[in-house]
Amino acid sequence: MKKPNPLLEDLKSVLPAIAANAFAAEKDRSVPAENIALLKGIGMHRAFLPKRYGGMEISLPQFAQCIALLAGACASTAWAMSLLCTHSHQMAMFSVKLQDEVWGVDPDATASSSIAPFGRTEEVPGGVTFSGEMGWSSGCDHAEWAIMGFRRKNAEGTQDYCFAVLPRSDYQIRDDWYAVGMRGSGSKTLIVDQAFVPEHRIQKAKDMMEGKSAGFGLYPDSRIFFAPYRPYFASGFSTVGLGVAERMLEVFREKTKNRVRAYTGAAVGAATPALMRLAESTHQVAAARALLEKSWDEIAEHSERHEYPSRGTLAFWRTNQGYATKMCIQAVDRLMEAAGGGAWFETNELQRLFRDVHLAGAHAYTDYDVCAQILGRELMGLEPDPAMV
Amino acid sequence: MKKPNPLLEDLKSVLPAIAANAFAAEKDRSVPAENIALLKGIGMHRAFLPKRYGGMEISLPQFAQCIALLAGACASTAWAMSLLCTHSHQMAMFSVKLQDEVWGVDPDATASSSIAPFGRTEEVPGGVTFSGEMGWSSGCDHAEWAIMGFRRKNAEGTQDYCFAVLPRSDYQIRDDWYAVGMRGSGSKTLIVDQAFVPEHRIQKAKDMMEGKSAGFGLYPDSRIFFAPYRPYFASGFSTVGLGVAERMLEVFREKTKNRVRAYTGAAVGAATPALMRLAESTHQVAAARALLEKSWDEIAEHSERHEYPSRGTLAFWRTNQGYATKMCIQAVDRLMEAAGGGAWFETNELQRLFRDVHLAGAHAYTDYDVCAQILGRELMGLEPDPAMV
Amino acid sequence: MKKPNPLLEDLKSVLPAIAANAFAAEKDRSVPAENIALLKGIGMHRAFLPKRYGGMEISLPQFAQCIALLAGACASTAWAMSLLCTHSHQMAMFSVKLQDEVWGVDPDATASSSIAPFGRTEEVPGGVTFSGEMGWSSGCDHAEWAIMGFRRKNAEGTQDYCFAVLPRSDYQIRDDWYAVGMRGSGSKTLIVDQAFVPEHRIQKAKDMMEGKSAGFGLYPDSRIFFAPYRPYFASGFSTVGLGVAERMLEVFREKTKNRVRAYTGAAVGAATPALMRLAESTHQVAAARALLEKSWDEIAEHSERHEYPSRGTLAFWRTNQGYATKMCIQAVDRLMEAAGGGAWFETNELQRLFRDVHLAGAHAYTDYDVCAQILGRELMGLEPDPAMV
Amino acid sequence: MKKPNPLLEDLKSVLPAIAANAFAAEKDRSVPAENIALLKGIGMHRAFLPKRYGGMEISLPQFAQCIALLAGACASTAWAMSLLCTHSHQMAMFSVKLQDEVWGVDPDATASSSIAPFGRTEEVPGGVTFSGEMGWSSGCDHAEWAIMGFRRKNAEGTQDYCFAVLPRSDYQIRDDWYAVGMRGSGSKTLIVDQAFVPEHRIQKAKDMMEGKSAGFGLYPDSRIFFAPYRPYFASGFSTVGLGVAERMLEVFREKTKNRVRAYTGAAVGAATPALMRLAESTHQVAAARALLEKSWDEIAEHSERHEYPSRGTLAFWRTNQGYATKMCIQAVDRLMEAAGGGAWFETNELQRLFRDVHLAGAHAYTDYDVCAQILGRELMGLEPDPAMV
Repeated sequence: MKKPNPLLEDLKSVLPAIAANAFAAEKDRSVPAENIALLKGIGMHRAFLPKRYGGMEISLPQFAQCIALLAGACASTAWAMSLLCTHSHQMAMFSVKLQDEVWGVDPDATASSSIAPFGRTEEVPGGVTFSGEMGWSSGCDHAEWAIMGFRRKNAEGTQDYCFAVLPRSDYQIRDDWYAVGMRGSGSKTLIVDQAFVPEHRIQKAKDMMEGKSAGFGLYPDSRIFFAPYRPYFASGFSTVGLGVAERMLEVFREKTKNRVRAYTGAAVGAATPALMRLAESTHQVAAARALLEKSWDEIAEHSERHEYPSRGTLAFWRTNQGYATKMCIQAVDRLMEAAGGGAWFETNELQRLFRDVHLAGAHAYTDYDVCAQILGRELMGLEPDPAMV
Repeated sequence: MKKPNPLLEDLKSVLPAIAANAFAAEKDRSVPAENIALLKGIGMHRAFLPKRYGGMEISLPQFAQCIALLAGACASTAWAMSLLCTHSHQMAMFSVKLQDEVWGVDPDATASSSIAPFGRTEEVPGGVTFSGEMGWSSGCDHAEWAIMGFRRKNAEGTQDYCFAVLPRSDYQIRDDWYAVGMRGSGSKTLIVDQAFVPEHRIQKAKDMMEGKSAGFGLYPDSRIFFAPYRPYFASGFSTVGLGVAERMLEVFREKTKNRVRAYTGAAVGAATPALMRLAESTHQVAAARALLEKSWDEIAEHSERHEYPSRGTLAFWRTNQGYATKMCIQAVDRLMEAAGGGAWFETNELQRLFRDVHLAGAHAYTDYDVCAQILGRELMGLEPDPAMV
Repeated sequence: MKKPNPLLEDLKSVLPAIAANAFAAEKDRSVPAENIALLKGIGMHRAFLPKRYGGMEISLPQFAQCIALLAGACASTAWAMSLLCTHSHQMAMFSVKLQDEVWGVDPDATASSSIAPFGRTEEVPGGVTFSGEMGWSSGCDHAEWAIMGFRRKNAEGTQDYCFAVLPRSDYQIRDDWYAVGMRGSGSKTLIVDQAFVPEHRIQKAKDMMEGKSAGFGLYPDSRIFFAPYRPYFASGFSTVGLGVAERMLEVFREKTKNRVRAYTGAAVGAATPALMRLAESTHQVAAARALLEKSWDEIAEHSERHEYPSRGTLAFWRTNQGYATKMCIQAVDRLMEAAGGGAWFETNELQRLFRDVHLAGAHAYTDYDVCAQILGRELMGLEPDPAMV
Repeated sequence: MKKPNPLLEDLKSVLPAIAANAFAAEKDRSVPAENIALLKGIGMHRAFLPKRYGGMEISLPQFAQCIALLAGACASTAWAMSLLCTHSHQMAMFSVKLQDEVWGVDPDATASSSIAPFGRTEEVPGGVTFSGEMGWSSGCDHAEWAIMGFRRKNAEGTQDYCFAVLPRSDYQIRDDWYAVGMRGSGSKTLIVDQAFVPEHRIQKAKDMMEGKSAGFGLYPDSRIFFAPYRPYFASGFSTVGLGVAERMLEVFREKTKNRVRAYTGAAVGAATPALMRLAESTHQVAAARALLEKSWDEIAEHSERHEYPSRGTLAFWRTNQGYATKMCIQAVDRLMEAAGGGAWFETNELQRLFRDVHLAGAHAYTDYDVCAQILGRELMGLEPDPAMV
């Protein structure tokens, strides 16, 4: 028996309003402020906030269930919100000092991110100075902080992949998010110029994968924080893809039921090819969901047991999401191919879902060529390729 | 927490012997007698036998787990054994008189079947006389009874799809199973000539789908018999496909690790395309398993609740299996494409797995064109097409 | 030995300017006037104009070669231009009176069209009055005439599919072309309100397929007019798809050569998956081109022999284009999947090619579900389904 | 206008007899002697024999047309015959002394081959002694000579890939061809033990690719011998695949027209999914043929012009065949998926075509992973990978 999901009913109540904003989000190239307000109103931004600061600490399967539903209303909003929420999970592994700075002051605060290690830093007493043009920071318009990636020379002379957390006052937002899909995610560039970042706001990525970060053990009763950060952090990409695909099934069905062919007046909805496409995409999305649910459950069960995954298990968690996203894209494409010319008008929801699901698959994390190589090497007993993370 | 599977450990102990017989099974075009003896030795044939006769009444997920494993050792044996076992589930819905005739006399008795409605019957006092050449009766060499399909005129002047149960003495077996795959399943033709079948050995298919058959309610405490017969009966086809595909992943990995290209000596196992094929097929089979597991669980949970599924739910159970089988075939084909010329020699396990998985998809029940139409019509709100069951 | 293409070199000289307008075309949602001027400047609009009016009467393979190249520069321009040109081929089958009205007055005149039979007409002495909101009229901003479809009751009481040719003064253009791809084609709606169309501007579609129209035989020496209109009319849809896909191969290659992965700095261009995707898409587009070239040659050879195709031959010509378009879309998708997140920015040519090729496949004529049914019925010896043309 | 094919009509006359032997060929695991006699009777084995010895020197497109047709009757016979014929093309590049030994004595003589460089040789005065177990020698039962591959140390200390031609008396045939498809090709192993091979029976592979072999220029008027050997040698693999796929289209159509579903009696032939599968496979095979025909024409035109191809052109010729074969396999699989359980019986032609087409794709030359890498590297401007030839 599944436990009741503490967010689900409240979320359903705000979805119609969020769906109604979907085209506005595209036009604004940012999550509408109203959407953020609605979601904060139901407390969704506290999903992974430590209970100490008033958070819910819900389980990953519960969270993912919400993100999928939200993505059916507005993929861009779900994309950004997923990251704003999971960044709290990540920040709960930083020092208590950072956490107090962020949530002690404002328990509603969230962080956006730009984690590719493109930050340029100089070592200074007590920390680093940080500069960079940090791209793809989804939801940044609505965040009080940002997590940014950089490489830092260590004592052995090699480099560690690190994250720095910076307050909103330390960076500018460049309004440059002109993408063809997921337009409402507002994934703009953060401009940082010589910002000082003290040590307590820095962590190594590796430490946060292995239970060795500054914040490790801060919440001994937690069922979600004894876990590597990345399976949580990155869960949203495929979940948004899933939610978009599930919405596509609904909209295609509704629209196709009443559609007739332009030249002949023939009913498309009762025609065998349309029926079969709908069925196959329904099966495919169901299989994608089943695969993801197993991963979510495994991740959550590991966390509950305070068990860190082996490299092989991590390889599955990392790459199942890319495969599920690929399945979702195929399912959407199969329907779009048979949706007719009208489906491509700007006012038609189908084309938005089509564009959004393709963007969900365009993230470095869901790039299936990378996923297949990571898992394939693992299965063949080869060492990981450092070019693929 | 999953319950322990009462058959699993015993099954594992006999798998090596069964795997060693796989080529013999092909040559004999029948399940080797040794395999049946081994499986009866661990009690597998009593998986769905009513407890009243000493049966286990295990759950469908437990049973399917065993069939998938068994299929990895010998798909033909798994195919036949799955049917011999699930036929007991079906016969538990017949009259108690039939059940006593079958299991009261011999609790180890099993039935093969030929359920396509090709029997020709005449009404006679107390039953029918039955004739026909009843094909595809997997495992018939090892069964004491057989379930056969026919159409019977009813009071309304239409026809009911019915099943008759005949003892081994009432039919001959024609040794005509010359197929390219699943050769060891011994799916031969049963020849019946004017056999009398008394009423108590006859049931309507529809009644056994809806909890209205003669045996309904005989086992009030049972967790598996308050259920339509077909989701159990037909579960094996896709499960065998799954088991074969999972075995393919293993064998491909082992063989490819050490394979070199004939002309150049290049190592195939470390080559990117082979790695990626293995990964994608691994993901695909994992998704097929996840989809099937959800179906098995749902079927079992309905049975435990004594809840009969809606038409829509049944359409998913019916067709998920076809989709999962399609996924498994694709996964196997993807590997076979890159297995090299040597994989096609008769002594190479890969080609046997390839042939067997294609046969698993050639059954009327796993024909995906049919599945897609069944589910598609359901999703579009159309009436079922009587041409597709 | 192929004959030299009289348009090719001139076309190449104007392509850079047209390519430079590609994003402007999208923004304007219409073919830029400069593009039309450039193409008229090289005489392309006279490709299928009867020689009597100064036309070139080039062959279909020559024309298609030009359209494919043009599509690589700007798919929208190629789409519209293809139709403006082939409409002249169609109008050459109308009465000489119409042709004199169109080209006797202005040999540079062209027609756009909206051929789905949505016109509403009333019979009046000497012709019909025509009304309707006639959609999807690509290139209409630049045409002096328009060909519009309607159904007309005949003496037998059934309906004939007919075309009417209307002058620009008889209809308004509604600026409603807000599509996600092929945006520059300006495929707007023509609004007609009670326009009188005299008989000599009307033809039955069927007559123009079978060499029975008013203009039949007007040009006894022509190598292109003894032919059904539709294989010419509709040739552009797949040809544009081909040109876009061929351009995609080039751009992907260029961009990928120098691309590195964001997180790791790994070179994508030398990576095996990218290489293999490029190769497979190159093969696929080459196969699509080979299939189309055979069709173009057959169509041209039939025309040269004044031979009208059998129903079976026509079914292949009709549907090969849908299949080739499907191949081109798959080829583009395969590359887009591996082009990275940056490919989806509005300023990136790859995403425009992706959107445009999908639109090329969204036309009723390239709908492969329809194509497969048309050809499948023909191959199986069934009568054509009137719901699919 | 295509030139008439001098072999075609005669070939058609013997096809029924060859088709009638198809199952016998499988049973014997060798080309039936009657088939060889029939094909020699029409002179097919002299297709590429130099005219000096009474050969036909037909063009590659003409030859390929014959092989495709022959493959429709018996793929195994076509496979072996293609090699026996093209080996004559290759031997025409050896020394005139070898040619006189082979054809001066017996103008009907042919050679089988085993060209992977697995021969072990020792240098001796006047040549080498050759030993090895040389596998996969299709048609060897019917050949008087054999071409075998080995590596030979050269003056620079590196190795040259070389071919030796050995007479039938110098090797034994091991009867070990137990494959799942292409069973009648008799691709057995040749056992050579210390056979002396004089210099004039040895050539470097590279020289025969570049017009530098001993026999270069022997036939100055020839339209086929100023060419690299391999595009001729290897043309048969894809051509056999094409012929099998084209036959599959016919047989599927015939069988499906009259097929009914076992459980419901529904007609499969008129059902939309079967129609659509037939159409799509027909399109796909037509595209594969169009692609191959272009390659055959290009190869022939180069030969006629005495022009040796660039590396890039060769990469296309080399790999187009792998892609075409892949298309043919997909086309066959698509039909087999919907052919029903009966299609898998040993007596059903469909399953033989299915097995044969998969074997056509299992050759090192048609391995599409290799093809995609070869072409991909070429397109990306990388050096060829020596691991892939």
